[in-house]
Amino acid sequence: MASPISKNKGAQTNMEVDYVISYRFATTEKSEATQTFERLIQKLSAVGLATEVRNGDNHSVLIFIKVASEEHMFGEVYRSRVRDWVHGVRSAAPEKETRVSLEAEPMYESERLRIIYQLITNPESEGGAGITPKEGEWKNVESLFPLHDHQYNNEWLKKWSKQWMLLPEDIDEIRERLGEKIAFYFAFTQSYFAFMIFPAAFGAAAWVFFGHYSAVYAIASTLWCIVFTEFWRHEEVDLAIRWGVRGVSAMETKRKDFEHERETTDPVTGEKMQIFPATKRLQRQLLQIPFAIGAASVLGTLIAVCFGIEIFISEVYNGPLKSVLVFLPTGILTTCLPILTGIFTNFAEQLTKYENYESDAGYQTAMTQKIFILNFITSYLPIFLTAFVYVPFGSLIVPYLDIFSLTVKPFAEDDKQLQTPSTSSFSINPARLRKQVIYFTVTAQIVNLGMEVIVPYLKRQGFIKYKEYQSNQAAKAGGAPPNPSEYDPPEEKDFLARVRAESQLDVYDVTTDLREMVLQFGYLALFSTVWPLTGVSFLVNDWVELRADAIKICIEMQRPTPSRADSIGPWLDSLSFLAWLGSITSAALVYLFSNDGLGPDGTPYDIKGWGLLLSIFFSEHLFLIARWAIRLAVSKVDSPGRQKMRRDKYLVRQRYFKESLDETSRLPTLGQKGEEMINREKLEEEARASSLRTARVEDKFWGRQRGWQETIQTGKRMIEAAAVEEKKKQ
Amino acid sequence: MASPISKNKGAQTNMEVDYVISYRFATTEKSEATQTFERLIQKLSAVGLATEVRNGDNHSVLIFIKVASEEHMFGEVYRSRVRDWVHGVRSAAPEKETRVSLEAEPMYESERLRIIYQLITNPESEGGAGITPKEGEWKNVESLFPLHDHQYNNEWLKKWSKQWMLLPEDIDEIRERLGEKIAFYFAFTQSYFAFMIFPAAFGAAAWVFFGHYSAVYAIASTLWCIVFTEFWRHEEVDLAIRWGVRGVSAMETKRKDFEHERETTDPVTGEKMQIFPATKRLQRQLLQIPFAIGAASVLGTLIAVCFGIEIFISEVYNGPLKSVLVFLPTGILTTCLPILTGIFTNFAEQLTKYENYESDAGYQTAMTQKIFILNFITSYLPIFLTAFVYVPFGSLIVPYLDIFSLTVKPFAEDDKQLQTPSTSSFSINPARLRKQVIYFTVTAQIVNLGMEVIVPYLKRQGFIKYKEYQSNQAAKAGGAPPNPSEYDPPEEKDFLARVRAESQLDVYDVTTDLREMVLQFGYLALFSTVWPLTGVSFLVNDWVELRADAIKICIEMQRPTPSRADSIGPWLDSLSFLAWLGSITSAALVYLFSNDGLGPDGTPYDIKGWGLLLSIFFSEHLFLIARWAIRLAVSKVDSPGRQKMRRDKYLVRQRYFKESLDETSRLPTLGQKGEEMINREKLEEEARASSLRTARVEDKFWGRQRGWQETIQTGKRMIEAAAVEEKKKQ
Repeated sequence: MASPISKNKGAQTNMEVDYVISYRFATTEKSEATQTFERLIQKLSAVGLATEVRNGDNHSVLIFIKVASEEHMFGEVYRSRVRDWVHGVRSAAPEKETRVSLEAEPMYESERLRIIYQLITNPESEGGAGITPKEGEWKNVESLFPLHDHQYNNEWLKKWSKQWMLLPEDIDEIRERLGEKIAFYFAFTQSYFAFMIFPAAFGAAAWVFFGHYSAVYAIASTLWCIVFTEFWRHEEVDLAIRWGVRGVSAMETKRKDFEHERETTDPVTGEKMQIFPATKRLQRQLLQIPFAIGAASVLGTLIAVCFGIEIFISEVYNGPLKSVLVFLPTGILTTCLPILTGIFTNFAEQLTKYENYESDAGYQTAMTQKIFILNFITSYLPIFLTAFVYVPFGSLIVPYLDIFSLTVKPFAEDDKQLQTPSTSSFSINPARLRKQVIYFTVTAQIVNLGMEVIVPYLKRQGFIKYKEYQSNQAAKAGGAPPNPSEYDPPEEKDFLARVRAESQLDVYDVTTDLREMVLQFGYLALFSTVWPLTGVSFLVNDWVELRADAIKICIEMQRPTPSRADSIGPWLDSLSFLAWLGSITSAALVYLFSNDGLGPDGTPYDIKGWGLLLSIFFSEHLFLIARWAIRLAVSKVDSPGRQKMRRDKYLVRQRYFKESLDETSRLPTLGQKGEEMINREKLEEEARASSLRTARVEDKFWGRQRGWQETIQTGKRMIEAAAVEEKKKQ
Repeated sequence: MASPISKNKGAQTNMEVDYVISYRFATTEKSEATQTFERLIQKLSAVGLATEVRNGDNHSVLIFIKVASEEHMFGEVYRSRVRDWVHGVRSAAPEKETRVSLEAEPMYESERLRIIYQLITNPESEGGAGITPKEGEWKNVESLFPLHDHQYNNEWLKKWSKQWMLLPEDIDEIRERLGEKIAFYFAFTQSYFAFMIFPAAFGAAAWVFFGHYSAVYAIASTLWCIVFTEFWRHEEVDLAIRWGVRGVSAMETKRKDFEHERETTDPVTGEKMQIFPATKRLQRQLLQIPFAIGAASVLGTLIAVCFGIEIFISEVYNGPLKSVLVFLPTGILTTCLPILTGIFTNFAEQLTKYENYESDAGYQTAMTQKIFILNFITSYLPIFLTAFVYVPFGSLIVPYLDIFSLTVKPFAEDDKQLQTPSTSSFSINPARLRKQVIYFTVTAQIVNLGMEVIVPYLKRQGFIKYKEYQSNQAAKAGGAPPNPSEYDPPEEKDFLARVRAESQLDVYDVTTDLREMVLQFGYLALFSTVWPLTGVSFLVNDWVELRADAIKICIEMQRPTPSRADSIGPWLDSLSFLAWLGSITSAALVYLFSNDGLGPDGTPYDIKGWGLLLSIFFSEHLFLIARWAIRLAVSKVDSPGRQKMRRDKYLVRQRYFKESLDETSRLPTLGQKGEEMINREKLEEEARASSLRTARVEDKFWGRQRGWQETIQTGKRMIEAAAVEEKKKQ
């Protein structure tokens, strides 16, 4: 019999280890460290986990964890599935017999790892060991991670590098290995990539035949955005059903940091409930408005100032050091922007914590929204400034940039070098917008990809080299710190070296990757009319991105702890929002710039405020109508997941109905079988009763015709009488 | 013991009759009429209904129906409730024991009547008698109706006429008497009335302090529209849960006229399914677009022409017969509009039938949408024309109305009477818009109310008088048609006379009343900035309307057959749409007319296209944001209905969980209890196994520390060693 759990037993064995804890005690008192360590092992053991300890890198030990008995594991999995079913996450009830249930639906690896993770981290009141890495009592628990399956990873990377398209099976495999949350990211990116073929092809054609700012391309692209967003809204549900996770986001896990104001008993369930008043939270949430305004104005000012400096230097200033000064704004931006973004992200985190959400899901959603605002500003504001401020109003604003000449003057040798910026001498650079869009959709994407994969690789290599150098130096000096691998048993040497390396790696955060994709979608939705080849660039980029992310997960990061999700979360709303906004910007761009809409003076000619607003108005309302229609059409589409859910529900319903039928079949039915009885016995009895209590007018009324035969006779007589009169009349 | 069914046994007894069938055979062959009659009685009897027959008015008989045995009735009610539960309409399962179940939740009158109605009309395959009034085989079945409970009705009307506000109990009582569908109408209108207090009060204040076209009033009114719509969206669900009908709209009853194209077996349930391809229906639905355009252009042209004539005659023309001609457009409208609307309604019906919906609900929704389009045009287009065509462009368009002078010329005695319309002589009448709004929101409402209640009353009285006169005449002539009451038993005389009268009454259609309310809401949402007292008028009107509708149901109409609904259906979408559109029109009206915005030449001065569009743009987007926020806030509000649903679901869940726990408790748990066993036996066993098969590196790995005590010892030693080194270094 094949075991329900398929574990890879290749050459590079993982020693059957499920999780590793890196326990670091460098900054802790020795006695405290040993006490905590003791408690840690006891807790783990108490929930049925076997442990082994080995030396880690300086001042840490590695604790290896595995489930002591597979039989227990089956029990936990079964309980988890029953809980899912009770919460409505699964539509089919698990088989009553555990063994049968696990054979019918074998446990998959990420399920196993997720359940063990919950066993380690859940609070003791919920049956876990209550180990919370890096927090409170367990601040010495530096990390808790499963081990990479290197053989599988190699095969995975090899396979993907040869495949042009990823198949649903590939995504399903990710789900089985890394859990639903990461699988959702890959499924989304793969769908996005596949959909990208259309804007790439159509964009290339539009670029050849219609040039830039073509209304045809703008319409096609906006429609594509709607179709893709609505497709994903549909697909997401289908995947969630297929993976049996639909509704897990509603099975809320309580946030550890949640602070309740008072406790009440739920009037419904009688359970104790910790309450934090919603109105108070609302008041706190209102702080988001000043936060958004603050972030927008600070970041916006920085971007606008750099933008102004750049235009001044590149297009107005003509003095010395121009070739150097040109890089000034880029320099300011690349140093200040990450710092400011960091500060605001930190602030957003504090704010979200202050909003005091009850569940992790609520916290995540609120945080994601804030991050989206920050990213929206830093990603799109520069292009907005060029498109809707610089080009239309440039000739009005630029003269005021004169203020810079005061600061630049010292460098100028004579006044001639400093041209007086005026509308006559200054002309707007119409290619600037296109260049900027190309920068954000090509250059920045490539840079980003490099930052994600190559830089960490170099960093890691450098770190290894540095450590080698350091230990060589120390060895020469004689006072070498003890090599942790010194006492390793020979057959474990390779294994332990690998685990020590993995314990140094970063933790993978799928939200970052997801955000990147959503922001990319934004460029396409908002600005691709400026440069229709955007889609082509993204198509290439996303093909690489999918593989690069796989490499990142396999090599750069610790193996992620599997967690569940039933969607890509609030990002779907971001997509919808960007598509909507796209319908406005595309219309505005087409109106402002079509035929490269520039007059002889470099400013767009013949722009009417009402014309611009009217095109926006039409475009937006057509967008809303199209979205309504597409959503309606998509909602009619059936899918394997939905069919499965209907089948499961039908079976459950049928079972209950049968049970209830057993009950009701004991009742007499109103039907053919009852007829005889009713007409003879019942009515005769009623007639008798009527003659007994003739006072009751109702009984008299119903006693006039006994049985349906008499009713028919009487009725016939009446009809015939009427018909006879009719004839008489004639 | 109180019977679960409380039946009124007052002086005006209904003879325990549940339903009455009026069987008319005037145009049918005698033999056919008797045969059909015989079959009718047999079918009724076969499903357990007792019957009595009496003479009706000329060429009809009245068939009285009641359930033969209450025991059977209980069975049917129970079965219906179980079916509801299986379909998820009720969240709590009915008690297994019928008696207990019916005592816990007594059957109410409309439930009883609904189930009997289904018993009579459902197809025989579903256990009914298959009687479909006026259709096919049963075309002689003129009507099927329950009898009014006059005593109750009198009390009802008396009570309501004294109450200022209706209480939830009053609405619940309607639900118990007349069914959920009608109760939803009353609940909606009552909520609407209660909400109307705000726009009435605020509107009156705004009228006093800000005058017409006040931006403050426009904002308040638009916000009110959102709040009311979202409140109702929430309330509707709550009512549906409280009345145990949530989801009945999804329990689709198959339309009798549905024509399938092919039959397949459902892959999910294995049931036979009749299929009509969705794409084909979509093609047919696309015909709605030409229908809407056609209706809009025909009705629009009629309205626009009459509007043009009216303006020409009242404001340009100065010739003879002016006092008569002024009524010409009104005359044309009042004759042509109902005819055209009738034609289009008929057309809409044909179109909806052609769209071939599978379920009655689908058909109703599609029909409602089309009716809404027609009503939208006839109700709002005249005001739209005045506000957005006549006032801004009047001075440009009116000169072209010259064409009328050709037709009017013959009447003019000399040319002086026919002023040459020109911008200089013609001036726009700025009060026209306000007058029009007042007409639609006051006069038309009163007229409508009169048409609904008083005209039918007069008609009925006239009809009675006419019949009396006729029979008197006939009696004088000697050839009197037989009086149907001639052979009535004396104790039934009054009762039968009452039933004969009721059989002549119309059937109540709640959709008409609902539509009226939605259209009224539209005036408030779209145009109330023109005349802020609109709310006051509607407040008064709705108070009367609620009572008038009660009177209508009690006196003018047959008692309605109860039917279920879980919402007011697609009208909610209409409300949302009108509120949205209101945000646009209000902004436009305020921009165009604020400060009564008319220049010296009678045209609004200083209107900028971009200004108008910008105010619309802002208003609409603020509307969308406000709606989003209000919807979010409303969704957080808890309600008794939702609490009840949670409680029921919790109980069901708890029961299942207990059942499953019984299963899982037999499995070993990973927990404190298992600890001993795991650490001693398990690991010792593993150690033994390890020494047996020393080849397995994994076993060696896990065999190094036996039990958690050893892990702790080893770990402690490692930590201490590291700490010692630390000290050495220092």
